[in-house]
Amino acid sequence: MSKLTKVILSEKDAPTHWYNINADLPALGVELPPPLHPGTLEPIGPEALAPLFPMELIMQEVSTERYIEIPEPVQEVYRLWRPTPLFRAHRWEKALDTPAKIYYKYEGVSPSGSHKPNTSVAQAYYNAQEGTKRITTETGAGQWGSALSFACQLFGLECKVYMVKVSYEQKPYRRVLMETWGAEVIPSPSVLTNAGRAILDKDPDTTGSLGIAISEAVEEAATRDDTKYSLGSVLNHVLLHQTIIGQEVIKQLEMFDAGWPDVVVGCTGGGSNFAGFFYPFLAAQIDEGKKTRIVAVEPAASPSLTRGKYAYDFGDTGQMTPLMKMHTLGHDFVPAPIHAGGLRYHGMSPQISAVLDARLIEARNTTQLPMFGACKSFVQAEGILPAPEAGHAVWGAMGEALACKESGEAQTIVFNLCGHGHFDLSAYDAYHAGKLEDYEYPDEKVAASLEALPLIT
Amino acid sequence: MSKLTKVILSEKDAPTHWYNINADLPALGVELPPPLHPGTLEPIGPEALAPLFPMELIMQEVSTERYIEIPEPVQEVYRLWRPTPLFRAHRWEKALDTPAKIYYKYEGVSPSGSHKPNTSVAQAYYNAQEGTKRITTETGAGQWGSALSFACQLFGLECKVYMVKVSYEQKPYRRVLMETWGAEVIPSPSVLTNAGRAILDKDPDTTGSLGIAISEAVEEAATRDDTKYSLGSVLNHVLLHQTIIGQEVIKQLEMFDAGWPDVVVGCTGGGSNFAGFFYPFLAAQIDEGKKTRIVAVEPAASPSLTRGKYAYDFGDTGQMTPLMKMHTLGHDFVPAPIHAGGLRYHGMSPQISAVLDARLIEARNTTQLPMFGACKSFVQAEGILPAPEAGHAVWGAMGEALACKESGEAQTIVFNLCGHGHFDLSAYDAYHAGKLEDYEYPDEKVAASLEALPLIT
Repeated sequence: MSKLTKVILSEKDAPTHWYNINADLPALGVELPPPLHPGTLEPIGPEALAPLFPMELIMQEVSTERYIEIPEPVQEVYRLWRPTPLFRAHRWEKALDTPAKIYYKYEGVSPSGSHKPNTSVAQAYYNAQEGTKRITTETGAGQWGSALSFACQLFGLECKVYMVKVSYEQKPYRRVLMETWGAEVIPSPSVLTNAGRAILDKDPDTTGSLGIAISEAVEEAATRDDTKYSLGSVLNHVLLHQTIIGQEVIKQLEMFDAGWPDVVVGCTGGGSNFAGFFYPFLAAQIDEGKKTRIVAVEPAASPSLTRGKYAYDFGDTGQMTPLMKMHTLGHDFVPAPIHAGGLRYHGMSPQISAVLDARLIEARNTTQLPMFGACKSFVQAEGILPAPEAGHAVWGAMGEALACKESGEAQTIVFNLCGHGHFDLSAYDAYHAGKLEDYEYPDEKVAASLEALPLIT
Repeated sequence: MSKLTKVILSEKDAPTHWYNINADLPALGVELPPPLHPGTLEPIGPEALAPLFPMELIMQEVSTERYIEIPEPVQEVYRLWRPTPLFRAHRWEKALDTPAKIYYKYEGVSPSGSHKPNTSVAQAYYNAQEGTKRITTETGAGQWGSALSFACQLFGLECKVYMVKVSYEQKPYRRVLMETWGAEVIPSPSVLTNAGRAILDKDPDTTGSLGIAISEAVEEAATRDDTKYSLGSVLNHVLLHQTIIGQEVIKQLEMFDAGWPDVVVGCTGGGSNFAGFFYPFLAAQIDEGKKTRIVAVEPAASPSLTRGKYAYDFGDTGQMTPLMKMHTLGHDFVPAPIHAGGLRYHGMSPQISAVLDARLIEARNTTQLPMFGACKSFVQAEGILPAPEAGHAVWGAMGEALACKESGEAQTIVFNLCGHGHFDLSAYDAYHAGKLEDYEYPDEKVAASLEALPLIT
């Protein structure tokens, strides 16, 4: 009898609803502080977001309905790659010589190569429904920009992507991919916006950051009537759209007859792939009392959950967004140029920040050399090449597996491999050549950044 | 009721045997002339291949058993990505405004991104079983080299890849991918072999060719006891290993309730993905009398099936291989540097050549600009980015679909999308920028190359 390697649900077993954790936060003992207007410091209402987002997404942002139906045109596009596979890592378990059972959800089968289209397709759909003609956004490594370009193409929208300059230079193929789906790609900071010009005046050689790119994209959307803005992580509605990941995983674990996992592991930048992966496990905790350890892994160069402060801060460098209470390194944080470009964000989703504050999850960090070491071990056993972002989850899962080797426990570990590294091979090349540096965020910089936080507690 | 977009077989429904068309050639009215010794011009026996290949593969090369069981360790590795999906191209049909029903098999979900591991895994397995320590090979675009590197890694073999120089320079990420799986990659022609040095003496600026790279890899294997050689296409046993593709497609079409296809389309370089895709349709023709049109598409820059001669020729430029009867442009053919590097081979599988000679299939060719135009149309509708090699099948299927639009016929078209283009984005970049050239193989070059053929008819 052959061992099952993977389970893929049929299209008819795909989730039809997104799971909205807002409905369950009280039951989980989590308080989610509201976003504040940066001038009045009063909680902002949905109408304040109307220049940036279509009304349906704003309603999802504040909704407390537990399940929100996925529109059929969105489900139809999901079927181009979903449901995605869940693998049992038989070969990697053997290579690590661990008694642990390791499973991984693989979101890299999407056209753009990560979990990001789960939300970009929904966002493009609602924008198209409400008459938006153009969408602006920012992208770090290019995963989000690719996903939005793909989605805009399908729904007939123009797409303009401000891409963090260091990634624009490190990952030229990502630009071409976005252009293949019809998008315009601009290295950020650019001279096209006030926010970009202000940064370039101060530091012409800046490598850019997600915070700066967000400012540029938001500014353009806020100043043009035909244009809305789209965010690839952080906000409630974005995390909501990702919850199909965890819903599928739970069904797939049943088909594997795997039992309930001891620990689930994901990587975090703004938090969306991680949230989409673990929220349904919290729902099961409420409904059925099933518990699991939940572990977030972030880069040591951008350690918002592990070393940031839980405080109100701007979502962007240019101070254009509402204030959100979140784990933050300060909105003027400019991270070291690590290859996990998608994780180099100063803040964290307010939902995940609140969930961490309530101690429902754990967080840890790693520098990039050990992370690439874990990826190398994984790719040699399983074949799939992880993106450096996803590599943080690989590193986290490997740590759990090696702890099991130490203790002799046959735990069940599940992690989210949120994207492939086909566009990150220059990073692997540098790693093989011994040219990659480890970056850790220095204590004095943590302190200095946090001084710049707005004084709201 | 939602429309089915794709069908993926479960692991327990995966094929357990390869289909060996050698068994059916007499019933199909096809005569397959034997390979000849280049010195004696006598048919060569299996023992002549023993310095290059393990005995089990040589036995498969000449076997006339209709089905050959796939060893469990090979099936186990296949399960890392197989069975692969069959899609219905709903969106592309709509974009093309055709009454045709278009299906595509997607082999790009493998770790190395194409159908190539279907045979590399089998070849590495049999080599490891028989004590081989090292394997040499050639690669054009890098698809085959990646696939063999991946497979060698899994079975603990060293792997050395001679990569056609123009591709080595066009596709640096492919090199890194091979190195990530532990292979050594050498631009060909190199100074490491007599064959390479001879070519470099004549033409130091040569961009290389598959024929030259084969000579280098064969020379190294033939002169080292611990080393065998591995070929990614052309030979019977390689095509054999690919027949799981077509077997899956036939089951998947049933699950789609699609009826028997009117036409199946594949791209051809050495012929392996095409053969693996259509051979099972010929088996069904014999068993059940079901007929379908079978169309091969090749580059106009390397038109062996459409403009070559069906004659005995060497498989390599250095005249080291046995003579094979095949459609050939002459073994000293050096193709234009088109981006479909995997299709730039002077010859064609002897099996496919014989099948074309018996008029069981059709062949056509295209230059690369119309091919990229078809890919652009496909990627904008379906999301998946085709490799330029696979793009020839996309172009062929699009031609069939547009013919249906003209005629009003709702034909069923199935094509093999044999790999993704994630490592070919420089080609898409050049296409967008209007910098791609069309190459057609000139008549006088066809004539000149054919003059160099050995005088055996």
